[in-house]
Amino acid sequence: MAAITPWRQLLLESIQANKHLKHSEYFQLATVRENGKPANRTVVFRGLIEGTEKLQFTTDARSHKIEEIKAQAFGEICWYFTDTREQFRISGTLDVIGEADRNAVRLKMRERAWFQSSPNSRLQFVGPSPGFPCPEGGPNDSTTPQLDPAQGPVENFCLVTLEPQEVDYLNLRKNKRYVFQKMGEFSWTQREVNP
Amino acid sequence: MAAITPWRQLLLESIQANKHLKHSEYFQLATVRENGKPANRTVVFRGLIEGTEKLQFTTDARSHKIEEIKAQAFGEICWYFTDTREQFRISGTLDVIGEADRNAVRLKMRERAWFQSSPNSRLQFVGPSPGFPCPEGGPNDSTTPQLDPAQGPVENFCLVTLEPQEVDYLNLRKNKRYVFQKMGEFSWTQREVNP
Repeated sequence: MAAITPWRQLLLESIQANKHLKHSEYFQLATVRENGKPANRTVVFRGLIEGTEKLQFTTDARSHKIEEIKAQAFGEICWYFTDTREQFRISGTLDVIGEADRNAVRLKMRERAWFQSSPNSRLQFVGPSPGFPCPEGGPNDSTTPQLDPAQGPVENFCLVTLEPQEVDYLNLRKNKRYVFQKMGEFSWTQREVNP
Repeated sequence: MAAITPWRQLLLESIQANKHLKHSEYFQLATVRENGKPANRTVVFRGLIEGTEKLQFTTDARSHKIEEIKAQAFGEICWYFTDTREQFRISGTLDVIGEADRNAVRLKMRERAWFQSSPNSRLQFVGPSPGFPCPEGGPNDSTTPQLDPAQGPVENFCLVTLEPQEVDYLNLRKNKRYVFQKMGEFSWTQREVNP
């Protein structure tokens, strides 16, 4: 059975039903490290790219996931909605849009994501390199950077998209599970499987 | 700087501080599929093995993660505590203890995990194969299996342990991050890094 992005409506309904919980915007993204071992971290959902099935989030050009995605551009999101007890496992290809991108449409998407971020989250991209050792005695708070709110994306700001190829949906309350697989552009199969 | 399992106390404190939330028992486990792509799913924490640093959870012998772990016994847990805004990324080696194990101590651990599981979660292991297609019209509820509460672990029940090698702890409220690395048995280094 083929259907037009059948999981998209399910996901939007889950986001809506759980939106009173701030943490429902967070999901876990798994990638593969350059040494072949798995990596996993919490990421903030920044919406779907308009008119597409692609999920967006942002990251720092200095973070490890950038190297990991370059080596293996495949990721799996695990998104658990705590209130409605639904899990989406969304696997697909990752794409990083950084400052050096030459495509004007993509750079516009990156700019839009920058201005949709809060002033506080923008500041992270001009702070010290994430994951690097702090100076003796911890980070120096007196060097807190400043950013003009009208300023466009800084060098380290990257938009990342995940284009789903398979979605495994589990509803623990209803004890139902469905697997959706992409067959072609906007063409998906859907089948019910045992939870 | 070497210390005795310095992250263990942090983790136990986070579990305690978030235990009013049922979902704080859940974390996401990333593994690598046999095709080299990442996998990620929510798992229920079943405690630390007494006297060790090993985290426990249970799984079905028929689930994909068993094959994945056989091919590459390395996993990364991402555990986000929503109330205290703390994230633990715990990577290490995975070990499956199934029915065919020949070590009496390990089989005892598996049996203990079985009896610590709720009757409802035990029933999952005698239900239809997880992830397999349902019969036409969805699962047949009239075939709900029964289990004697005194009965020991069924064939499909597996205990899985993760022995941490690195723990990356992020506290978003305090804007602090520490990385702990295992150097030898019960010997760990700890360093503060930029969040």
